[in-house]
Amino acid sequence: MKKIAVLGSTGSIGTQTLDVIEHAPEHYAVTALAAGGNVGLLVEQAMRHRPRLVCLGTREAAQEAARLLPGHIRVVHGEEGLIEAAAATEADLVVTALVGSIGLRSTLAAIDAGKTIGLANKETLVTAGHLVMARAKARNCTILPIDSEHSAIFQCLAGAPAHEVNKLVLTASGGSFRDRSREQLRDVTVKEALQHPNWAMGAKITIDSATMVNKGLEVIEAHWLFDMPYDRIEVLIHPQSIIHSMVEFVDYSCVAQLGNPDMRVPIGYALAYPGRRPTPTSPLRLAELGTLDFREMDYERYRCLALAFACGRQGGTATTVFNAANEVAVARFLAGELAFLDIERVLETVLERHVPVATPDLATIEEADAWARNAAGGL
Amino acid sequence: MKKIAVLGSTGSIGTQTLDVIEHAPEHYAVTALAAGGNVGLLVEQAMRHRPRLVCLGTREAAQEAARLLPGHIRVVHGEEGLIEAAAATEADLVVTALVGSIGLRSTLAAIDAGKTIGLANKETLVTAGHLVMARAKARNCTILPIDSEHSAIFQCLAGAPAHEVNKLVLTASGGSFRDRSREQLRDVTVKEALQHPNWAMGAKITIDSATMVNKGLEVIEAHWLFDMPYDRIEVLIHPQSIIHSMVEFVDYSCVAQLGNPDMRVPIGYALAYPGRRPTPTSPLRLAELGTLDFREMDYERYRCLALAFACGRQGGTATTVFNAANEVAVARFLAGELAFLDIERVLETVLERHVPVATPDLATIEEADAWARNAAGGL
Repeated sequence: MKKIAVLGSTGSIGTQTLDVIEHAPEHYAVTALAAGGNVGLLVEQAMRHRPRLVCLGTREAAQEAARLLPGHIRVVHGEEGLIEAAAATEADLVVTALVGSIGLRSTLAAIDAGKTIGLANKETLVTAGHLVMARAKARNCTILPIDSEHSAIFQCLAGAPAHEVNKLVLTASGGSFRDRSREQLRDVTVKEALQHPNWAMGAKITIDSATMVNKGLEVIEAHWLFDMPYDRIEVLIHPQSIIHSMVEFVDYSCVAQLGNPDMRVPIGYALAYPGRRPTPTSPLRLAELGTLDFREMDYERYRCLALAFACGRQGGTATTVFNAANEVAVARFLAGELAFLDIERVLETVLERHVPVATPDLATIEEADAWARNAAGGL
Repeated sequence: MKKIAVLGSTGSIGTQTLDVIEHAPEHYAVTALAAGGNVGLLVEQAMRHRPRLVCLGTREAAQEAARLLPGHIRVVHGEEGLIEAAAATEADLVVTALVGSIGLRSTLAAIDAGKTIGLANKETLVTAGHLVMARAKARNCTILPIDSEHSAIFQCLAGAPAHEVNKLVLTASGGSFRDRSREQLRDVTVKEALQHPNWAMGAKITIDSATMVNKGLEVIEAHWLFDMPYDRIEVLIHPQSIIHSMVEFVDYSCVAQLGNPDMRVPIGYALAYPGRRPTPTSPLRLAELGTLDFREMDYERYRCLALAFACGRQGGTATTVFNAANEVAVARFLAGELAFLDIERVLETVLERHVPVATPDLATIEEADAWARNAAGGL
């Protein structure tokens, strides 16, 4: 019986994680659930999965949950609560599915507590990859990626050493505006941007797919997860999102992971690792699909991706600032304050103004993050 | 330094194996070479690779080679010679690239001698899979497939246990007559049949691709190599031969191996196993290819494949007879004695007349083989 803590249990990845867990209740037990403000859903999840501990974003939300839950379920809140949910239960695996950069301290706490990490929060590595990977290495902690691309690469590598790898190839659907020119992007609406062709995901990541910021964050994440230089990470447009990513080895053999676009496959892989178990998903039928298409990435069309590579190569606080400025810009786009192409303009401007710090500590990262959010808010 | 014996060194797989070896001379040494009658090429290979022993098909060929080679290279011949080449040198890896069913005894001898087998001779498992796999298991001998499809599956499995696998999916290009109806197959010529769309291979295997007998042999081989029931082996038409095969796991994650159609990749994999080393091949460029296509296998169109599945399910001597009758029928087609569709007719007729024996020993297999050849010769 594997014990699991799910941080961000009411979001898209969190609910799908619980779906996979329910599919094999004899193999998994939930020890902790953490959410932001969705008290109703968190309470429902807690009643069903009976964790020892739940965490909510605020004291008020926690008090409301405590009234609704049986007394033996401990209810905590805020960042301290999140750290307790991540590190202070008997969980073997901590799924970090929080959105944005709030997951960092709790992830580090889980690593320190010797937990295996199911990493669905890509900002953790984008903002503090050098700290997190060094800490994981020192504690001999396994980090299992839950992003579909990184899970694909992890599965394709199957433990192969880095010197046998030529490059990692991340596939990108091209997002909701794949077939539009830059000119046609000027006046797109929030509603249009939220129509992802293949994946049903949260709003933030759907916008990030359209801008290709999401792929940029994934490139940076892949750099850290697989210890791979940026010039050996490639992005390939693959509209159908069936090949989730691949590895080219030194012998020019490529190994790819394929499947229907369903996050419960990479989630199930992380949960069952090092084995595999059935997931509540459907089999891939290539003959019905008929065709898989591929084309070169266009870095002029998707400038945010070029920007992500540049930040990654620069290193230090550059990727933190890229991520933080993007979070603000996307929120402002979703709120109707910015046009779609303004997201890219905000990123460029904030990065131009930023004076990067190499190998920053946690305080410096948080400072750069706060600076970038502030800067992005005023542009 | 890995020591390698190459049985069938002057054929298509043999010459490519030596090409891969020459690409990394600091890692590989050749201890033995065996060929049929191509004395000139064998002598040239021996002068370059300096094996301790060479083997030729006949005494006459061996005598001719002995005159041309330095005295410290031992020259042997015939089946006894082949067994010596397979088992009696210090080789770590024996590549069995002989065409047809002559490779069986030497492969068993190599297994008994504790060699790792690089298996490029698929008839070995088709005719005697139960004997070979039992012997390999008893001696704890690793069999590394060199066929592109089986190498692909081996790479995709990456050691995963059978209970994590839903099915194996072998891809098939469809061969030289993929886009012809059965009606249009009546009058095809030998020359047309030898035009394989993707792979440059020997004549026998190119015809076997056009009839889909080759895929049938591969299905049977996959059954033995990966201990997989026939109802969990699927064949998918994939005209471009870029995905060489794939594995669907129980979580509905699929892992596929891809690459340009170049046998030096699976050869290089077997040679470098358990690591990987650069091969003298070129990288896959999916964006240049643009598209990969897939369609369901049509068992009415490719009746020989349906026949292979039926023989596989029947087991015993049925697959031996399938293979032996096919060797004769293809030779007769290449000699102009039979029309293309006669290959299938000969197979069907011989199999109808055969009284199969379950779990045959080597003598029974050879008897069934001889009977089938004789029967196929007279139809």
